[in-house]
Amino acid sequence: MPLVRIDLMRGESAQYRKALGEIVYDAMVDVINVPKDDKFQVITQHDSEDLNFADSYLGNHYSKDIIFIQITLSSGRSIEQKKVLYKRIVDDIQAKLNARPDDVFINLVEVAKENWSFGHGIAQYVT
Amino acid sequence: MPLVRIDLMRGESAQYRKALGEIVYDAMVDVINVPKDDKFQVITQHDSEDLNFADSYLGNHYSKDIIFIQITLSSGRSIEQKKVLYKRIVDDIQAKLNARPDDVFINLVEVAKENWSFGHGIAQYVT
Amino acid sequence: MPLVRIDLMRGESAQYRKALGEIVYDAMVDVINVPKDDKFQVITQHDSEDLNFADSYLGNHYSKDIIFIQITLSSGRSIEQKKVLYKRIVDDIQAKLNARPDDVFINLVEVAKENWSFGHGIAQYVT
Repeated sequence: MPLVRIDLMRGESAQYRKALGEIVYDAMVDVINVPKDDKFQVITQHDSEDLNFADSYLGNHYSKDIIFIQITLSSGRSIEQKKVLYKRIVDDIQAKLNARPDDVFINLVEVAKENWSFGHGIAQYVT
Repeated sequence: MPLVRIDLMRGESAQYRKALGEIVYDAMVDVINVPKDDKFQVITQHDSEDLNFADSYLGNHYSKDIIFIQITLSSGRSIEQKKVLYKRIVDDIQAKLNARPDDVFINLVEVAKENWSFGHGIAQYVT
Repeated sequence: MPLVRIDLMRGESAQYRKALGEIVYDAMVDVINVPKDDKFQVITQHDSEDLNFADSYLGNHYSKDIIFIQITLSSGRSIEQKKVLYKRIVDDIQAKLNARPDDVFINLVEVAKENWSFGHGIAQYVT
């Protein structure tokens, strides 16, 4: 169900980009009850002039290695679950990819359960 | 009103990509009352490592020809209308582009009517 | 907080693309109370066949210079504020970049305050 869009600067390896996606997927499975294999991710690299951000916001200092993560998912996670998800994603990105915790920007977009079709034109979550 | 984002692997022709967009547009006009010419679509091709998905989910088996369709539209369609929309999109993609029904992933994001401006900075749906 | 996605045809300069982002940012700070430095923008250029739109809709006539602006932001702005935002963005794009007011398409997606993490895996708006 979650559709994940990851946007980052051009230049990281295919392995790095794939690993980023896997970290977000594993975190969702482990801490917000996303089903196994419910993995739909679009990763896009950009030229430096096409990611536009401030030097810092709310005490976070951003670098050219900033990672934008936007997750569209079904409604229903509590604020507490969302907090645990953010923390887990950032901890794993830091531990496994050696990225700076400042550089991870995450946004969730919530939708209804009937807003998904995973193949064959069926709304699998309401059938 | 609907803003449609279609993401797929690099390699299909311009005609194929355009046809994909037209199929989604025609389906929305025909089955969920989207007005004629309300067509705003962004299609993006990706390298194979940048679309990250499982081999299968809920019985659907995905290939490198997977098509991600994300439609942002105004709220108000019934579950029944959404089901008809999904079916129509997949049926047409299969019939006209010979794609596998397993490979069509669809997600809807719903917003308020005042969340659109179609030109001139006017909120045309609430004026 | 706002995550801004701007999509346009390939060919405009880096300066033009950056200026587009800055115009949207400045407008949000000035008219809908977005905090200073809350700027997270992804700009993507596309080949002409990958932006798919009608010649006109609701009296707006679109050209190859069409600009798609999708803003994900926290809920809570009034219809009046949204109208002012649209107008300001289009007026500034016209004045500063000499773009046609017909060619500016804007969509807002609203989310809950807890749906953001700006770094360090913290949900800064609910802590």
